[in-house]
Amino acid sequence: MELEKIHFDERGLVPAVVQDHETGEILMLAYMNAESLARTLQTGETWFWSRSREELWHKGATSGNLQRVVELRLDCDGDSIVVRVEVAGPACHTGERSCFFRAVG
Amino acid sequence: MELEKIHFDERGLVPAVVQDHETGEILMLAYMNAESLARTLQTGETWFWSRSREELWHKGATSGNLQRVVELRLDCDGDSIVVRVEVAGPACHTGERSCFFRAVG
Repeated sequence: MELEKIHFDERGLVPAVVQDHETGEILMLAYMNAESLARTLQTGETWFWSRSREELWHKGATSGNLQRVVELRLDCDGDSIVVRVEVAGPACHTGERSCFFRAVG
Repeated sequence: MELEKIHFDERGLVPAVVQDHETGEILMLAYMNAESLARTLQTGETWFWSRSREELWHKGATSGNLQRVVELRLDCDGDSIVVRVEVAGPACHTGERSCFFRAVG
């Protein structure tokens, strides 16, 4: 990972869209800071920065629903990331497979 | 759209992930403020807030590559949106179909 290509925002964060590698389903959107991105790369599992708890967050550490990283993709201007993952269980704390379970409009 | 369910951040923005409705490909991530979201709902085409230009941005107005909204989905805590769209051409200003054309790692 060429970390210098990533543009963290004024909060030191970059949005990371987590996508199911097999189905293409968008599972969640969370934020990474440099440390969580580094841990994601080191461990091959997703780590985020929790804005509400203000701490590093190893996705699935509590629930057991870890996300194994298959691929990281960076957008054209380097300020957002797609993380393609393999998952065993739901991504959402509600028990839904995806956090985007509500259609609106 | 139940606008009151959407939590705009301290900048008045919510990240919107644009996904190809047919293929599931993630095309881009951009930001909406309340006005761009309202216009998206009114017109059935995507509108964003350009942070660099500090102006409303009707996606495709210049390039012709409009994004027709098929469905809007809101995540569990209401602070990010997935917009499923039909597209005729590339989403990226580089001419790539998706802005996430760079694999990194």
